[in-house]
Amino acid sequence: MYKIAVLPGDGIGPEIVPEAVKVLEVVGRRTGIEFQFTEALVGGVAIDARGQALPPETLDLCRQSDAVLLGAVGGPKWDALPPEERPETAALLPLRKELGLYANLRPAYLFEPLAEASPLKREIVAGTDLIIVRELTGGLYFGPKKREKTDTGEVAYDTMLYSTAEIERIARLAFEIARSRRCHLTSVDKANVLTSSRLWRDTVESLKGEFPEVTLEHMYVDNCAMQLVRRPAQFDVIVTENTFGDILSDQASVLTGSIGMLPSASIGGQVALYEPVHGSAPDIAGQQKANPLATILSAAMMLKYSFKMDGAAAAVEAAVGRVLAQGYRTADIYVPGTSLVGTAEMGALVRREL
Amino acid sequence: MYKIAVLPGDGIGPEIVPEAVKVLEVVGRRTGIEFQFTEALVGGVAIDARGQALPPETLDLCRQSDAVLLGAVGGPKWDALPPEERPETAALLPLRKELGLYANLRPAYLFEPLAEASPLKREIVAGTDLIIVRELTGGLYFGPKKREKTDTGEVAYDTMLYSTAEIERIARLAFEIARSRRCHLTSVDKANVLTSSRLWRDTVESLKGEFPEVTLEHMYVDNCAMQLVRRPAQFDVIVTENTFGDILSDQASVLTGSIGMLPSASIGGQVALYEPVHGSAPDIAGQQKANPLATILSAAMMLKYSFKMDGAAAAVEAAVGRVLAQGYRTADIYVPGTSLVGTAEMGALVRREL
Ligand SMILES: CC(C)[C@H](C(=O)O)[C@@H](O)C(=O)O
Ligand SMILES: CC(C)[C@H](C(=O)O)[C@@H](O)C(=O)O
Repeated sequence: MYKIAVLPGDGIGPEIVPEAVKVLEVVGRRTGIEFQFTEALVGGVAIDARGQALPPETLDLCRQSDAVLLGAVGGPKWDALPPEERPETAALLPLRKELGLYANLRPAYLFEPLAEASPLKREIVAGTDLIIVRELTGGLYFGPKKREKTDTGEVAYDTMLYSTAEIERIARLAFEIARSRRCHLTSVDKANVLTSSRLWRDTVESLKGEFPEVTLEHMYVDNCAMQLVRRPAQFDVIVTENTFGDILSDQASVLTGSIGMLPSASIGGQVALYEPVHGSAPDIAGQQKANPLATILSAAMMLKYSFKMDGAAAAVEAAVGRVLAQGYRTADIYVPGTSLVGTAEMGALVRREL
Repeated sequence: MYKIAVLPGDGIGPEIVPEAVKVLEVVGRRTGIEFQFTEALVGGVAIDARGQALPPETLDLCRQSDAVLLGAVGGPKWDALPPEERPETAALLPLRKELGLYANLRPAYLFEPLAEASPLKREIVAGTDLIIVRELTGGLYFGPKKREKTDTGEVAYDTMLYSTAEIERIARLAFEIARSRRCHLTSVDKANVLTSSRLWRDTVESLKGEFPEVTLEHMYVDNCAMQLVRRPAQFDVIVTENTFGDILSDQASVLTGSIGMLPSASIGGQVALYEPVHGSAPDIAGQQKANPLATILSAAMMLKYSFKMDGAAAAVEAAVGRVLAQGYRTADIYVPGTSLVGTAEMGALVRREL
C-alpha cells in the first residue's frame, strides 16, 4: 500500500488532479497495488482558508506519505501580494526545501502527433526526447541574500553558492539517469565567468570515472539556450544549477508543442513530489478546458521514480500516445482536423486505453 | 573625423571585419565624413604575440578612439587554457569593464527573406523585431566570488549584486530606446525568488513616471525564455541583468535565422564597442565562407549610436535587406533556390546597394 498526498491547489488544479488520481486507481486495480489518497490544501486556497500557502498540516501529510501529487498554485486573486508571498513562491520553495527535494526532473518529449503544435519546424523538433535535471535546493535561489540602504540608494544581492557535496549528489543522479537512457550527459554551466560554475564543472568531471558508459559534455548556459532551439534532439540528459535549470526547463517546455503536456518530478528526499510544469491557468479554470495530460504523465513519473513500477509508467505513457494518435486534443493542442475534448473526457480516454 | 579602433581577433574575424570597414569607407565617402581606422591585436592572436588576450596598447588605442569594431576571439588553439584565461573571457570581460560599457544592445530582427532559415515556423517568427538591453558590468558576472576548501570538500560562490544607481542607468537607457521604437519595455527579473531582482523591479518601476509614453511590463526570466520561443513578435525592448541577458540574448539570436546576421553594441562609456554576436567559427576560418552581415550591421549600429548618423545606419540596413531579397546568401543562411556567395562577395554586394 502506498500513501499519496494529493494537493490540487488553485485554478485548474482541482480539475486536472482528479484525472491523474483516477489513472492511478486504474493502475492500482490492474497491478493489485493499493494507493491511498489524502487531500490537503496548498497555495492560494490555503492562504484563504488557513492564512498560509503551505500550512503545517499539509507539510505533515506530505512527510507521512510515500509520494505527493500537486496540481498548480497561484492566480490573480493573490497577485496583489508581494512576489515572495504569492502562492507559487510561498508554497513551492519551502515544500522543496523541507522535503529535501534537491533534484527537479523535467522531460521534454515530442509526441509525434503534436509536432504540428510546436513553434519549431517539424524537422527541427523531430526526435526531441530530453530530460533536464535541475538542482533544486541550492544555488542562487537559496544562497545568502540581502537588501540594504546605502548613502546613495540601496544595494541588494543573491548568492550562487555550492558545495562539492551538493554538486556531487545531483551530478551522480544525472549520470544514473543518463545511464538508464541514451548515455549522454550535458552539464551546463558558465565556467568561463563564474567561480561556482568552475567548482560545478570540476566536480561533475570528477565523477566521470564512475560512469564509463556515459559520454559527458560540458556546455555554457548561453550556448545551451541556443542549442535547445536550434537542435533540441541533440540532448539526452542535461544537468544544471537551480536558476539555469529554471530558465532552460521553461524554454524546453514550449518546444514540444504545449506546456500542457509536460510532467515533472522533484526527488532526492524521503518523499518525492510530482506536478505538471504548467501553472494554474486561472483564465480557463472551472471550464473543463484544461489539459490533464501533464498531470497524468506526472503520475506516470511517480510510478517510475517513487514506486519503481516502470512497466506501469510506460503503459500510462503509451496510453497517452495512443489517445493523441487517435486525434483527440484539448484546446491547448488543438489543430483543425483533430477532435476537441474537455478535461474529464481526455482523462477517460487515457483510462480506456490503459 | 572619427577614429575607429579595429580589432579583427581570431578565426573568421580577419575575414569579416574588413568587409564592415569597407562599408564604413563607402558611407564616409557618401557623407563626407572621414573615418580613420587603426588595427590592434586582441584575443588568441594577442596571447600568441604578446602573452595577453588584451594587451595594454590595445586598450590604450580603444580609449583614444571614438568607437571600437571587434571581430571575434577564441578558438581550439587556446581551449586547453582554463576557461577564465581563454581569449573570450580574458579579452571581452576586462574590455567591457575598463571601457565602462554597462549596456549591451542586441537586436533580433527578422529579415523577411530569411524566415526559411529560422528554426521557428514562419507564422511564429513573422514580425520579430526586438532588442535586448543587457546590463554588462555588474550582476552575477562581477559581484564578489570565491572558491575555498572546507573540511568535506570545497565551496564556491558568485554574487548577483546591484545598486540602485547601476539599475537606474541601464533602465533609463532602455526606456529611452523603447521611446525611440514601439514604446514597449519588458523588464525581466526573478523577483519572486531573488532579492536583487526585487530591487531591480522597484528601481525600474520608479522611473516609469519619467517615460509616460512607454508601456512597462515586468516578466519573470523563465517565462521570458518561453515567450521568446512561443511568440517573439510580442517584444519590443527587453532590459535585464547581465547573466539573464547573456542567456536570453543568445536564445533570441537563433530565432531569426542565423546568428551570422546579428550585430551588437556595447555602450555607456566614453567609447563604444561594436561586434557581431557570433563567435570566431574556427571550423570555417580562412575559407571565405563566413557571413559578414552581422559585422556590417554592427558597423551600422556604430553609425547610429556613436556618430548619430541614423540615416546612414538605416541605409546600410536597407542595403543588407535588398541583397537578401535579391536571393544572395552565405552558407549559414543558404537554402536551395538562393545564390550562394562568399564573404568578400557578400560585402561587395552590400556596398553596391548602398
Ligand atoms: C514559482 C517559482 C518559484 C518556481 C521556480 O522558479 O522554481 C517555478 O518557476 C518553477 O520552475 O517551478
Ligand atoms: C565570452 C563570454 C564571457 C561572453 C559573456 O558571457 O558575456 C559571451 O558569451 C557574450 O555574451 O558576449
